[in-house]
Amino acid sequence: MPTQAKGWGTDAADQPLKPMAFERRDLRPDDVAIQISHAGICHSDLHMARNDWGMSRYPMVPGHEIVGTVTDVGAKVSRHKIGDKVAIGCIVDSCKQCAPCRAGTEQFCEQGMTMTYSAVDKHDGTLTQGGYSTQVVCRDEFVLKLPDSLDIARSAPLLCAGITTYSPLRKFGVGKDSKVAVVGLGGLGHMGVKLAHAMGAHVTMVTTSPEKGGDARELGAHDVLLSTDGEAMAAAAGRFDFILDTIPVAHDLNPYLALLTPNGTMVMVGAIAPLPSIHGGSLIMGNKTLAGSLIGGITETQEMLDFCGQHGVHPDCEFIEMSQVNEAYERLLKNDVRYRFVIDMARGL
Amino acid sequence: MPTQAKGWGTDAADQPLKPMAFERRDLRPDDVAIQISHAGICHSDLHMARNDWGMSRYPMVPGHEIVGTVTDVGAKVSRHKIGDKVAIGCIVDSCKQCAPCRAGTEQFCEQGMTMTYSAVDKHDGTLTQGGYSTQVVCRDEFVLKLPDSLDIARSAPLLCAGITTYSPLRKFGVGKDSKVAVVGLGGLGHMGVKLAHAMGAHVTMVTTSPEKGGDARELGAHDVLLSTDGEAMAAAAGRFDFILDTIPVAHDLNPYLALLTPNGTMVMVGAIAPLPSIHGGSLIMGNKTLAGSLIGGITETQEMLDFCGQHGVHPDCEFIEMSQVNEAYERLLKNDVRYRFVIDMARGL
Repeated sequence: MPTQAKGWGTDAADQPLKPMAFERRDLRPDDVAIQISHAGICHSDLHMARNDWGMSRYPMVPGHEIVGTVTDVGAKVSRHKIGDKVAIGCIVDSCKQCAPCRAGTEQFCEQGMTMTYSAVDKHDGTLTQGGYSTQVVCRDEFVLKLPDSLDIARSAPLLCAGITTYSPLRKFGVGKDSKVAVVGLGGLGHMGVKLAHAMGAHVTMVTTSPEKGGDARELGAHDVLLSTDGEAMAAAAGRFDFILDTIPVAHDLNPYLALLTPNGTMVMVGAIAPLPSIHGGSLIMGNKTLAGSLIGGITETQEMLDFCGQHGVHPDCEFIEMSQVNEAYERLLKNDVRYRFVIDMARGL
Repeated sequence: MPTQAKGWGTDAADQPLKPMAFERRDLRPDDVAIQISHAGICHSDLHMARNDWGMSRYPMVPGHEIVGTVTDVGAKVSRHKIGDKVAIGCIVDSCKQCAPCRAGTEQFCEQGMTMTYSAVDKHDGTLTQGGYSTQVVCRDEFVLKLPDSLDIARSAPLLCAGITTYSPLRKFGVGKDSKVAVVGLGGLGHMGVKLAHAMGAHVTMVTTSPEKGGDARELGAHDVLLSTDGEAMAAAAGRFDFILDTIPVAHDLNPYLALLTPNGTMVMVGAIAPLPSIHGGSLIMGNKTLAGSLIGGITETQEMLDFCGQHGVHPDCEFIEMSQVNEAYERLLKNDVRYRFVIDMARGL
C-alpha cells in the first residue's frame, strides 16, 4: 500500500525548495523501501533544481547522496533485509544487459541510466524523486550496503563526491608510489585528498587560496602548491604522476598538464563545459593523458564504500535541517562550506 | 681517422637542400659507423630544414629514418659488428640514468635527448647530422637491429612513422578484440592502419577524402568512414575503443571523441599546435581519454622492428634519389605521396 513521504523539493526552476508530500510507490518484487536518515547536498542538486542544464523535470525532490535503513523489501529481494544500513547514489536503474552495464559502468547504459531524481522510471513512467526526503524506494540491485565501520551520519557524501573521486584514482592505479595532485578544494577535492591519502599516495593540494593550505593538510595533503604562484608552478613542472582536477567550471588546463611527469595522467571530474584551447604539445610532449570521469558504477561504488569502511575515510560534513536547504544553496554558490552539507532528517521535519 | 661523408643538407632556413661534404668523426669506444642505404623523408624534416619550429641549427643534414650496414665499430662495442643490417631513428643519445631513460622513454630524458640531427652532441659539442647522407656514426645503444625478415629498402620509415604509431597502439592495449579508427591517411596514418591490422584489430580509416577509401582498404582497413558525412559520423558514435589521430595540424577533436565507446581512448601523434576548444563533457560523459604520444624509446623501437619483421609489415615507399629531395619536399607539402618518400643512396650520388 502506498505510504506518505515528506520531502523538500520544487515545482519549477524559479521557485525555492519547499516542503512537499507525495505517495511512495507500492513495492515491486525487486524493490527496497528505505527510511532516509541523511542526504548530502551536491552542487549538481542546485543546478538541477534551477534547471541550469535544461534537463530538469518537475516536481522535483533533489538528492543523490542518500543513506538510511531498510524498512521493507519486495517479494524477490534477498540481498537486503529490514534493518540493514544502506545507501543510494546517483543511479537507481539501468538495463543491466548492454555492454557498458555488463562492464560495470551503469552510468553509460545504452538505454540511459535512470538517475535518482528528475528522471523517468522505466516501468511506470513516474518521475524519480531523490533524497531530500524521509523515504525512498529503489530497485534492490542499486541499493548499496553501508559497512558497519562507517558512521552513517557522515557517509552520505561518499555516494557522489566519494565515488566520483575514487573511480579515476583506481582506474589509473594510484597507490603508494604515486605522486598525486588534487586541484580544487571543494566537496570533490576534499574527498580526492582523503582517498588518495588512504591509498598511500603522496598528495599535494593545488589551490588558488593560500588560506586553504592548512585545511588541505588537515585533510591529509602532504604538500600545498599555489597555482597563482608562477615560480612555484614552474618548479613543480613534471612532478606528478596523476592529477585529479575537480574544478567545476571551464579553466585553462595547460598549466596543470605541465605539472605531469612523462606518461602522467590528469582526470577532470567537474568541468562539463567548453574548455579554453589546449596545446597539442601539452599532451604529445611527454606522452601525457587527459581523461574525464563520471561518477562510477554500482559494483565500484560498493567497493568504494568498503574501502572507506576499512580505512575510516569519512567526508567532512556540516549538518543542517531540511528547512535550511535554500540557505545552504546560497552558501554553496559562494563555496562557503567545509566540505559538504548533509541534511539530518531527524532534525526539523 | 675521420673519413669523408657526402650528404644533402642546408646552411640556412631560406636555402633549398644542396650537396654537402663533411668529415665523419673518429669512432669513440662506443660508436658504430654505418653506411646508409636508405633514408625516409619525414614531414618534420621539412619543418626542421625551414626552421618552422624555431629550433633548427645549421649546417643541417636532415633525416631520422635511417637504415644501412655497419662498417666499423669502436673498441668497446659488442652488440653490433661489421656487416650487420642496422637502423637509427630519432634519438642518438641520452643520459640513460634519469627516471624517463630508465623507464625506456629516452625521448623524455631529463637532460634532453640528443636528436639525430640539428642537435648538439653532448661529448664534443658538434652538431649531429642526419640520414640524407652516405654515412653516419652513432652510439651503439641507440643503433637498432634490423630483422632479416624485413626488406631493408622498405624499412627506413619504420624508424619514425612506424614507432610513432606502434607505441600508442601498444600502450593502450590494442589487440584482436579492439575496434580501432585511424584518422588521417598520410605517412603516419598508413602505418597506423598496417600496424593495427597486424595486431588483429578491426580497423576503420577515418578520412575527409572519398578517393582514399580504396587505398585504405588495400593497406588493411576493414572499413572506411568519411568524416565529412555527418550522418555516417552520427551513426558511428560510440563505435571505437581506440582512435589514432594522425592529423598534423590543429583541428576540432570533439567529433572524433564522440566516436569513442565509454572508456575509449584517442591518441594524437601529430597536432603539436593550440587546438580548438574541447568540451569537457566530451571526456567526462563516457570516461574517455585523450592522450598524446611522441615517437618511442629505444627498447620499444626494437620491439616494433621485431614485430614488423614477424608480421611482414613494410611501409609503402616511393623511392627517389638524393637530388630529388627538394622536389619531394614540394610534393610533401601537397600531401602528394603514397605514403613515404625514401632516398635510395645508391642512386644519383
